[in-house]
Amino acid sequence: MEDLTAFLQEAKSAARTVAKLSGKTRANALNEMARAIEQNGEAILSANEKDMNAAIDLSSALRERLKLDEKGVLEMAKSLREIAACRDPLGLVIDGWINEAGLKIEKVSVPIGVIGVIYESRPNITADVAALCLKSGNVAILKGGKEAARSNAAIAEILQSVLTKLNLPKAAAALLPDGSREAVKWLVKQDRYIDLIMPRGGEELIKTVTQNASVAVIKHDKGVCHLYIHKSADYEKAEAIAINAKVQKPSACNAIETLLIDDLIAAEFLPKLKAAFDKRSTELRGCEKTRAIIDIKAASENDWEREYLENILAVKIVSGIGEAIAHIEKYGSAHSEAIIANDHSAVERFLNEIDAACVYANASTRFTDGGQFGFGAEVGISSGKLHARGPMGIKELTTYKYQIYGSGQTREH
Amino acid sequence: MEDLTAFLQEAKSAARTVAKLSGKTRANALNEMARAIEQNGEAILSANEKDMNAAIDLSSALRERLKLDEKGVLEMAKSLREIAACRDPLGLVIDGWINEAGLKIEKVSVPIGVIGVIYESRPNITADVAALCLKSGNVAILKGGKEAARSNAAIAEILQSVLTKLNLPKAAAALLPDGSREAVKWLVKQDRYIDLIMPRGGEELIKTVTQNASVAVIKHDKGVCHLYIHKSADYEKAEAIAINAKVQKPSACNAIETLLIDDLIAAEFLPKLKAAFDKRSTELRGCEKTRAIIDIKAASENDWEREYLENILAVKIVSGIGEAIAHIEKYGSAHSEAIIANDHSAVERFLNEIDAACVYANASTRFTDGGQFGFGAEVGISSGKLHARGPMGIKELTTYKYQIYGSGQTREH
Repeated sequence: MEDLTAFLQEAKSAARTVAKLSGKTRANALNEMARAIEQNGEAILSANEKDMNAAIDLSSALRERLKLDEKGVLEMAKSLREIAACRDPLGLVIDGWINEAGLKIEKVSVPIGVIGVIYESRPNITADVAALCLKSGNVAILKGGKEAARSNAAIAEILQSVLTKLNLPKAAAALLPDGSREAVKWLVKQDRYIDLIMPRGGEELIKTVTQNASVAVIKHDKGVCHLYIHKSADYEKAEAIAINAKVQKPSACNAIETLLIDDLIAAEFLPKLKAAFDKRSTELRGCEKTRAIIDIKAASENDWEREYLENILAVKIVSGIGEAIAHIEKYGSAHSEAIIANDHSAVERFLNEIDAACVYANASTRFTDGGQFGFGAEVGISSGKLHARGPMGIKELTTYKYQIYGSGQTREH
Repeated sequence: MEDLTAFLQEAKSAARTVAKLSGKTRANALNEMARAIEQNGEAILSANEKDMNAAIDLSSALRERLKLDEKGVLEMAKSLREIAACRDPLGLVIDGWINEAGLKIEKVSVPIGVIGVIYESRPNITADVAALCLKSGNVAILKGGKEAARSNAAIAEILQSVLTKLNLPKAAAALLPDGSREAVKWLVKQDRYIDLIMPRGGEELIKTVTQNASVAVIKHDKGVCHLYIHKSADYEKAEAIAINAKVQKPSACNAIETLLIDDLIAAEFLPKLKAAFDKRSTELRGCEKTRAIIDIKAASENDWEREYLENILAVKIVSGIGEAIAHIEKYGSAHSEAIIANDHSAVERFLNEIDAACVYANASTRFTDGGQFGFGAEVGISSGKLHARGPMGIKELTTYKYQIYGSGQTREH
């Protein structure tokens, strides 16, 4: 791993340079990158075509995520401009006070340093992540999926050519030269050079990273999300939200896997819900009580803990909000949870007691997303509790330091 | 590790209960604990005497840290009351906005969950850490040093008797039943039950934890701190701060290890500084240029990277602020760094460019401390960049969740 060590040394040295750049310089570089992406769209598309040709054996879902077209290239450039236009997240005075000794203590936002992001499939993530890191004064080490190798290389080459043109270190946005599993295992132990690793992807990847890392890790893990329909719910809202949360994009981590419904309204709501889901070809799997009302497959214990990533929904009748909360505490992954209710106390109890990154009242869990939150592009959705929780934008890619102004103070005891 | 699994299951279940307690209930429990500590001081002192008798082979420094007397017990109780009196760190609305879909998004502070703290020697940490965790709605798993086992057990028993009396889960403040190295290695992998591990202590401990952990870790690591005397410095301030930062408590992580001084003032300042340090029996070790001015031992390359934890100071002459910053970037541990200067641009450049948890102008690095910052007691000083940096009080023991109020919103694309 000698070559990789040199690569990381370069990244760390670049981090010192990038941290000192003005917000204007960083934003300007991103706008230049947007222009370069537009001007070199053909190179990206031709590389993507080669990836697509080599990926004939992949599933159509994966091929769809891999595929770039002219519109995709323009959107990549647009995303870079949007990130460039965000308020500079560095140098913000987050807090400040004068302590007993008379020191003026200011808590100021600063970059994290070198950030490794491990992701899969979609090539536009390469541009997005590089841009989010540069905007927040960080250096990005990018490790994309094997299947997108040519597309990612083409994109990274364009971004780096802009950095070189502007006399900025091209290590600020670099693909990991060795994408092997062994290289990843080695990488996540390099806490001397890397400040943060963000794995985005399947369970296997997350496990490999967390079990081997000595670098700090923020996981973008699976979502086992629930929608709970309280007895005080409006049927129309409940149906619209249930359909949206399950069907609009079943492969998303913020889609729901289980519907919980109060026994008092089950007989009235479930047949109508079944009709609505049937129209969308959703496969329903129910508990015993559910199956006494609607004719669907049986759900097993295993169904309550699964992230389907498909158009399948488990349904369970509960005796009230207490049982609903207990079920979510037991099976949920603390990602996104929602209640549909008109009852004020039920809403407040649910929002307060459920421990998840995003807890919704009367809205779809699908809103757990940096773009929907208004953060601009997102670098991922944190499923951990430390540093950042839920959607992560540029603000979440910063840390802080204390700048302390004295006039000769010494400590007494 | 079957017994330990049951112990962790109890801790996780306690975390759900504790998270839902009102701020008043948590503060009341802490005040009751303070009273119980005072009332049972003799039991603590008698246990501590046994620890001291068993520790005859330890160094006098370690024995001093282990020793408790009546005053120490009263201070422990006082610290609990101070923590109880802090503003409740939970339920604070940190941020809030309405997104494009009309969702009201509120970012609210919540507990982290189950926190394992691994520490050494001083028994009062047992009470402090348990109290800081309870105040912030968390459950504490306490793993103290072997040498303080009896003292820690006596303190934990008193805290738990109060929890039991108040019908609160005693797992909220529990000593790890097995303190072996193997148990620690196993513990730091239990991310199913534990949300955060905080190792406070020597390099060996930190290494064991970071290399084995799959749980998130916040390190309380070593400090290789510098004091840089710029050519524009007042001599009197420089001397007072240098002496304070080195001599007042050489064993502290926020004490300085290296003094950097501009060449232009070295011939004037160094002889006076040597006289001042000689009075405090400080051993000085210098670079070649320093030794041409004052007669001291030679510093080797190794001296620049060491945390002495003793009354020893390395001295180096630099050609100006650029070299000083480069030296600190190369050898510093990003803990606490200080400049003594009257020149405004030098101060601003140092505070902006040095990447460390606490960067001081004209003050002693010894102020890096939760108490000195005004946080009340501290659970540790984070030497990492993620989640928390520098002194950690109760606020740093919280995370956040998003509570989102909708009126039927679904996501469009």
